[in-house]
Amino acid sequence: MPSERLRQQIAFVREVDALKSISRQTWLLNQHRKENDAEHSWHITVMALLLQEYAPTEIDVPRVLHMMLIHDLVEIDAGDVLVYDEAARAAQHERERAAAERIFGILPADQAASWRAVWDEFEARETPEARYARALDRLQPLLHNLFTEGRAWREHGIRHEQVIATNAGIGEGAPELWDLARALIDQAVAAGHLAE
Amino acid sequence: MPSERLRQQIAFVREVDALKSISRQTWLLNQHRKENDAEHSWHITVMALLLQEYAPTEIDVPRVLHMMLIHDLVEIDAGDVLVYDEAARAAQHERERAAAERIFGILPADQAASWRAVWDEFEARETPEARYARALDRLQPLLHNLFTEGRAWREHGIRHEQVIATNAGIGEGAPELWDLARALIDQAVAAGHLAE
Repeated sequence: MPSERLRQQIAFVREVDALKSISRQTWLLNQHRKENDAEHSWHITVMALLLQEYAPTEIDVPRVLHMMLIHDLVEIDAGDVLVYDEAARAAQHERERAAAERIFGILPADQAASWRAVWDEFEARETPEARYARALDRLQPLLHNLFTEGRAWREHGIRHEQVIATNAGIGEGAPELWDLARALIDQAVAAGHLAE
Repeated sequence: MPSERLRQQIAFVREVDALKSISRQTWLLNQHRKENDAEHSWHITVMALLLQEYAPTEIDVPRVLHMMLIHDLVEIDAGDVLVYDEAARAAQHERERAAAERIFGILPADQAASWRAVWDEFEARETPEARYARALDRLQPLLHNLFTEGRAWREHGIRHEQVIATNAGIGEGAPELWDLARALIDQAVAAGHLAE
């Protein structure tokens, strides 16, 4: 018989499968459908590994990977909210804390505490690791918009100033990546993919 | 203007989005659809982090995470092959090597070499890291079959002896997880979800 500890860990493995069914606003680059949170989490974890040289200080890369892998698990209960919808994002915060209690609580106590601490660190955006992680969490959907002629922006009537205000945090976590993003955003405005 | 290096890295970020459109044989636990390679890669990376205590020796966990994140990228060109289809798996090998050349070749030269080395290590299954990584790559779809009443097994007419033979490698990479899997497989046979 498996130990109680292993039973709890496997229950968590089962639970998190639900992340694959949480849809986001971001279109796949082939524009066949929108992506889901599990796909997004995978993509930004790859990006965190690939682009670590653009963090402005030395960072603990394995801790960033842990953040990237689990940062959206709370959306299993709380759902995804459009990053440009500020009212919805404020109401979302309490739902996400309750979700973190429930979902990390499935784990054995030591892992429940340490994984929750990783999630809390990501949410607080205070450490260089959390700022770099957050930068990639924002950069990935921004790139998807840029590379699909602004499809999700156009669907939601998003304008240039909103894109700049919402994504400026990329500059704190990865300044050179924000320089790149701003250049691409300017091109999107010039091409008519993003409204002035 | 972004450096040539950053341009190559962003080209890779774009390229790998295609992994989200490579369908697998594994059903989601809610059975709404089959999962894709990006979702699978995310799930087993989480599992690798969660279950590291079951590796039989000390392992380099960040290296395992790197393997898990990129091991299926070659399927962007080569496609997914049913793990129980041995003839197809043999023919698959050359296609996957060509895919690795092309896809990792998009990266700057230093990263192309180091990421390809991680993929080669996973494929060779010789290091403890590669064996543990392979164990999770097999365990995850096995758990999905076990927790969906053997749905993919029944679709493909897979029998008990094939499941044991194909998955026994889990025992090399994570012995206690193979003990758990065998107990669950026995239950699946008893319940009629897997043919004797």
